[in-house]
Amino acid sequence: MGDFNQSVILEAVRHAVDGLSRIELAQVTGLSAQTVTNITRRLLDEGLIREAGRTISGPGKPRVMLRLVEESRFAVGVHLDPAVTTFVLLDLAGEVVRRSSMATPAEAPSLILADLAAQIEELVEGSGVPRERIAGVGVAAPGPLDATRGTVIDPPKLPGWHRVALQDDLAAAIGLPVVLEKDTTAAAVGELWTRRGPSDDSFVFLYLGTGLGAAVVRDGEAVRGSTRNLGEIGHIVVDPEGPRCACGSRGCVDVVCTPEAIVERAEQLGVLAGGRRPGDRAALDASLTELCVRAVAGEASAGAVVQRAAEHLATLTLVLTDLLDVDRVVFGGPFWRRLADLSLPEVAARLARSSATRAVRALPVQSTVVGDDVGAVGAACVVLDSMLTPRTSDLLLGR
Amino acid sequence: MGDFNQSVILEAVRHAVDGLSRIELAQVTGLSAQTVTNITRRLLDEGLIREAGRTISGPGKPRVMLRLVEESRFAVGVHLDPAVTTFVLLDLAGEVVRRSSMATPAEAPSLILADLAAQIEELVEGSGVPRERIAGVGVAAPGPLDATRGTVIDPPKLPGWHRVALQDDLAAAIGLPVVLEKDTTAAAVGELWTRRGPSDDSFVFLYLGTGLGAAVVRDGEAVRGSTRNLGEIGHIVVDPEGPRCACGSRGCVDVVCTPEAIVERAEQLGVLAGGRRPGDRAALDASLTELCVRAVAGEASAGAVVQRAAEHLATLTLVLTDLLDVDRVVFGGPFWRRLADLSLPEVAARLARSSATRAVRALPVQSTVVGDDVGAVGAACVVLDSMLTPRTSDLLLGR
Repeated sequence: MGDFNQSVILEAVRHAVDGLSRIELAQVTGLSAQTVTNITRRLLDEGLIREAGRTISGPGKPRVMLRLVEESRFAVGVHLDPAVTTFVLLDLAGEVVRRSSMATPAEAPSLILADLAAQIEELVEGSGVPRERIAGVGVAAPGPLDATRGTVIDPPKLPGWHRVALQDDLAAAIGLPVVLEKDTTAAAVGELWTRRGPSDDSFVFLYLGTGLGAAVVRDGEAVRGSTRNLGEIGHIVVDPEGPRCACGSRGCVDVVCTPEAIVERAEQLGVLAGGRRPGDRAALDASLTELCVRAVAGEASAGAVVQRAAEHLATLTLVLTDLLDVDRVVFGGPFWRRLADLSLPEVAARLARSSATRAVRALPVQSTVVGDDVGAVGAACVVLDSMLTPRTSDLLLGR
Repeated sequence: MGDFNQSVILEAVRHAVDGLSRIELAQVTGLSAQTVTNITRRLLDEGLIREAGRTISGPGKPRVMLRLVEESRFAVGVHLDPAVTTFVLLDLAGEVVRRSSMATPAEAPSLILADLAAQIEELVEGSGVPRERIAGVGVAAPGPLDATRGTVIDPPKLPGWHRVALQDDLAAAIGLPVVLEKDTTAAAVGELWTRRGPSDDSFVFLYLGTGLGAAVVRDGEAVRGSTRNLGEIGHIVVDPEGPRCACGSRGCVDVVCTPEAIVERAEQLGVLAGGRRPGDRAALDASLTELCVRAVAGEASAGAVVQRAAEHLATLTLVLTDLLDVDRVVFGGPFWRRLADLSLPEVAARLARSSATRAVRALPVQSTVVGDDVGAVGAACVVLDSMLTPRTSDLLLGR
């Protein structure tokens, strides 16, 4: 149980902005003074924590404060989105120390892998961080994944990516441990890590990237599902009068709620000029931005398209919260920022009006604290998380 | 951590059909020989386990086998369904030793409570089980619940039940601890307890009673949600061309998938004669049975109604499994038996064809092993569960 207790102590130190003394650590964790002394000695030796001054509180010896050494370990996060790939380097406190991005190349996966490896090398070298302090690389990729093999399986918007062994091949190319995570789950881990909510924090995360996906955090841990593919919501019907979907139904999330679908509808109605190249993310972003700017400016036709999108997001959110019974709803992803102000009130009002649990509690609806890079940041947090966060499942496995 | 380890040992003994020796218990649980000796002595003193013969395996002293004493503790389970209320008495092994049922009276909740208390008294007295061996009463009720207050809140099909303090009032009336659980969650706990699947068993349970609800088990534990109301699925759209729902949408589960909705559709199409009294469960059951019998006999119009219902259940199941990423799907509840043979193949085929994770694994679809009384049996299992099953959450709370 040594590793579990070590994680408990590291996590407590990480959460204490002003540091903690050994006595406080024993109080907070319930561990014995001797155990705290042994583990903190080990952590000091490894450079993960440091002694940072003494405080006097009441009679007795002054207490030595212990703090996290933010620059003792780092993690790389990569978000492989069909349109753009984002890279971040995070320190142990979860702060972004360097970032970069590139258009996801439209070439064979093996060539993309070489590009990813080169970009990671450049990120690490450019940061000046010694390589031995990089704990690993987290890669957020669109599902479905084959987690046991570390492969992505035919993601709908990454043509040619059939069972690419992303995890092993990238690890071999860069010589660092690689962990593969579903993009939406990574984003939820990023939110969880950065907001530092209550230890039993429970929320559903709705991620608006090229597609729209969900992730769930319960009792302070990301819920990954049996195959790490939890959160596929593309075929939940949110508009029975909506357009046909390839699945045979109509008005599915995939055909009405995604940024692409919202812009397409505006184009079909003549609210936006058409002519975008499919898969051109910059053009999609520009179109969505224009639509939202014109809606905010009071243009009725643009406002109607955005309002309808907000209603669909509200319907989706209601389905998810009634089923999942979480404490809050978090939206994020690169396209969310455009829609946030126009959609949040509609979603919140719908939950207040129609949630199955409205008689018991309110359900806050929020934007992520992490920003557009939440997928990449979250992927790096998955690596840090595996170092720092105590897991009862690990505890039981280790028994 | 004493209670946690005691639960670990009781659970291990419960699962071992032929009993376990102390040495085997130490091996299975990872606890020290001394801890196992101390805890088993306590459990023997309390009469929860017994010594049951000796076995010789290899050289050395013969080993004393320890077994659960099934008749040492009992629990009452009550399923308060809008139409019929079911009562069961379970022993510590989860076996039903006595059952009864009554039509749920259409009277004020306070009078119904008196009826429930009287029926529970009769169940216990009729069984001959000494009252001090009854660990408690589990009540499965339709959601939404206010779990912190132990009340049911305006369940749609129980008129007059506005914030009735079911838990406290019933406990006061019968002088036994009472725990309130959502009906679908109780059913899932019943399945979990009775099937004895793998320790990381994960499934979604679809319960067909007067309404249709879902529950989730993950890693061998029921997931209850933040307010114990997880699993409200009534307004997931499964048929965009379906009838209007009171919520403003169309083709919601509530208006196309429930036993009531299936029978209503058959009546509208003239496949079944109309004239049932609303809320008359026996008439609903008779009509659904007739419909299914005629479908099995090859009558095309009856077959079409049932096939359509099966397709809707398949759509619902696909939405739930894509979102939740569990290992299997379990159907149950009093109306399921009628539909099982006609619906299971359709649901299984849809998942095989369209599940987001079909490339990674198969998703078995099964009927519950518990039978029609799964709600009441599950409610009693909730009580036994709180005695027997180790909970890492308790472990952490106790730290």
